[in-house]
Amino acid sequence: MRITKLFSKTRKDSPKDETSKNAQLLIKSGYIHKELAGVYTYLPLGLRVINKISNIIREEMDNAGGQEILMTVLQDKNIWEKSKRWDDNAVDDWFKTRLKNNTELGLGFTHEEPLVNLMKNHINSYKDLPIYPYQIQTKFRNELRAKSGIMRGREFLMKDMYSFSKNKEEHNLFYEKMKEVYMSIFNQLGLGDKTYTTISSGGSFSKYSYEFQTVSDAGEDIIYIIDQEKKLAINEDDFNEETLKDFGLNLNKETLRSEKSIEVGDIYSLGYRYSKALNLKYTNEKGLDEFVYMGCYGIGISRLMGAIVELNSDDKGLVWPREVSPFDIHLISLSKTENYANKIYDELVKRGFSVLFDDRQDTTTGVKFNDADLIGIPKQIIIGEKRIKNNEVEIKDRKTQEIKIISVDSLYDLL
Amino acid sequence: MRITKLFSKTRKDSPKDETSKNAQLLIKSGYIHKELAGVYTYLPLGLRVINKISNIIREEMDNAGGQEILMTVLQDKNIWEKSKRWDDNAVDDWFKTRLKNNTELGLGFTHEEPLVNLMKNHINSYKDLPIYPYQIQTKFRNELRAKSGIMRGREFLMKDMYSFSKNKEEHNLFYEKMKEVYMSIFNQLGLGDKTYTTISSGGSFSKYSYEFQTVSDAGEDIIYIIDQEKKLAINEDDFNEETLKDFGLNLNKETLRSEKSIEVGDIYSLGYRYSKALNLKYTNEKGLDEFVYMGCYGIGISRLMGAIVELNSDDKGLVWPREVSPFDIHLISLSKTENYANKIYDELVKRGFSVLFDDRQDTTTGVKFNDADLIGIPKQIIIGEKRIKNNEVEIKDRKTQEIKIISVDSLYDLL
Repeated sequence: MRITKLFSKTRKDSPKDETSKNAQLLIKSGYIHKELAGVYTYLPLGLRVINKISNIIREEMDNAGGQEILMTVLQDKNIWEKSKRWDDNAVDDWFKTRLKNNTELGLGFTHEEPLVNLMKNHINSYKDLPIYPYQIQTKFRNELRAKSGIMRGREFLMKDMYSFSKNKEEHNLFYEKMKEVYMSIFNQLGLGDKTYTTISSGGSFSKYSYEFQTVSDAGEDIIYIIDQEKKLAINEDDFNEETLKDFGLNLNKETLRSEKSIEVGDIYSLGYRYSKALNLKYTNEKGLDEFVYMGCYGIGISRLMGAIVELNSDDKGLVWPREVSPFDIHLISLSKTENYANKIYDELVKRGFSVLFDDRQDTTTGVKFNDADLIGIPKQIIIGEKRIKNNEVEIKDRKTQEIKIISVDSLYDLL
Repeated sequence: MRITKLFSKTRKDSPKDETSKNAQLLIKSGYIHKELAGVYTYLPLGLRVINKISNIIREEMDNAGGQEILMTVLQDKNIWEKSKRWDDNAVDDWFKTRLKNNTELGLGFTHEEPLVNLMKNHINSYKDLPIYPYQIQTKFRNELRAKSGIMRGREFLMKDMYSFSKNKEEHNLFYEKMKEVYMSIFNQLGLGDKTYTTISSGGSFSKYSYEFQTVSDAGEDIIYIIDQEKKLAINEDDFNEETLKDFGLNLNKETLRSEKSIEVGDIYSLGYRYSKALNLKYTNEKGLDEFVYMGCYGIGISRLMGAIVELNSDDKGLVWPREVSPFDIHLISLSKTENYANKIYDELVKRGFSVLFDDRQDTTTGVKFNDADLIGIPKQIIIGEKRIKNNEVEIKDRKTQEIKIISVDSLYDLL
């Protein structure tokens, strides 16, 4: 894509109404736009990152046996009353609205209830289980405060998978597998080194669950590292004698390293909590009715994008990991090198690279370099007047700022 | 995908609470689930169709110079008050909600206001124009009644593009181009023969606009065909002396054919309506400030899916056009042909076909045939015990029900 065609512009200054680094940088560099506190529009560059993250997750979900669906924002009060989660005293971050006839509706913050209700039409026999529907969909949470940019949105994009199993044993196999699937996702997103599978409380049904926590000063949680090599941690909130005993751990808080961290995912065993509330049963091999055993597996996609920004930036701007960068290459044409740069652009596109091409004619070299570092695509190729006389170009690594001079002939091999 | 893994099930009977053919058939065949009147979840098969339609539209938008973004559902009252579209008397189908601090928010039914507001950060000079942002996003309209299935949802998926041009002349060039782009989309979706570019009233700014109307008994509109060959029509509501005069048409209502039709898209010249309300200006070549000239271009994606169903079904079920079918091929294995069918399934997938494979062991031939016709994938391949002795399979055309017996060797060439 040519920058002269891209409508988003970088800014000189960070927005003053943002306190989080992720929102400041993403707005400054033209990736997102703030509509309201905790409510952000994704501009062309931002949507490309969101799609890259989504596709990595989608592929892992499909490989794990997931089936993608798309549920609705609007929620039926009757269904949520069955699980006693309609009341604002039970769930304190509902957004609610009304039909013309005054019927109250909710805006989905999660989808256990409607999915269980839906599954009553599709689960009859043990032969129908296990199944793993998932979606990548917009969720709504009426947060009292929204100060963490896209990491804690009032409207945000989430991947939520739900498992429907015959019993606890079948569930546990998948639950354990998902721990690995999740770590594989964080590895692919360049967050693996800093992300810990973290023992946490279990919520409404099971005693414990696992969170995935990425170490960052921007995090709102605190974790204690149990095993650096195995990437195992425990949430500060659950560091108590009972938990340690239940997991057979003999640990001393004083000797462990604690870190601030961002919760980038969580997996819950739901057990019979929702299948009982909404009466979701199947007929087992003996012809008897049993409740379905459930789990849920969430990842905040916009939050992940925020976490990646928090961990990958410097004073010049963003530094995307290759896997989620909006483009593979940032191609910069300096003065009077337009024709030469055009040829290289066409050749790169022909070879399947996605390229952001700074083809601006009326912009100084300094502005182009600053914008490239701000936008943060990992590889920059600079076409300068002097170099092209020797058929050479510069390749600059965004992160290290290291520049290599190479011949155009070897450019395509090197990439 | 193997049917034994697909969680959605077909039903014997149509749902009794649906009056529209599209919702009845799509629920019966396991493509969608009704959450509330006018609010539908897309199950795996349904989402595949939605994605096919979206990708055809996305490609056309990108080719036309569009830049994809993703705006938000939650809407800021302050922005909409500037255009006087916040008040429920001005827009009667708003859904509204509230933050914890009681601030009123809207749920987006369209996005002119927030996009114009956003563009104030990105449009400065004539060099920034024209630009064409678009999105594929969920919209909300608080319809009093929702009786047309997915054709008139309270929550629905829409592609909305907006054009920002320097002046009316530049706008008109793009507006005319979009008429062709839209017809190209409807042609690709298999609706071209029955879709008419239709003269209609212009809404809030310009006197006239164009709708794209697909002839169907399920439609809520009535059009008069002006030119069958050029696929030009006029909406009944605008068939009056003034309109005819403005378009230089000399027509007599009595001699024209009228048809019921579904509005599948519309394109509006918005002029300065929103740029003036929200003060979106650019500096022209002479250094003077001018308002930006706008247009908008909508297509209801879920409505299109509904329209395709209304036009492509028979008493056995759905009949998808190839381009939007959830799978290329419905492969049916009959009794004791499992191994043989498995090989063909693997080979088809290897060759890049998407295949729904009915690998059920405990299901009668009759049920398999009925399900295949109900689900409506255009090509069925039937692997029967007798035929495979001669290395033959049957290919059945869903629409014509015509069956050809061919050798397995020629199968892949034929497809």
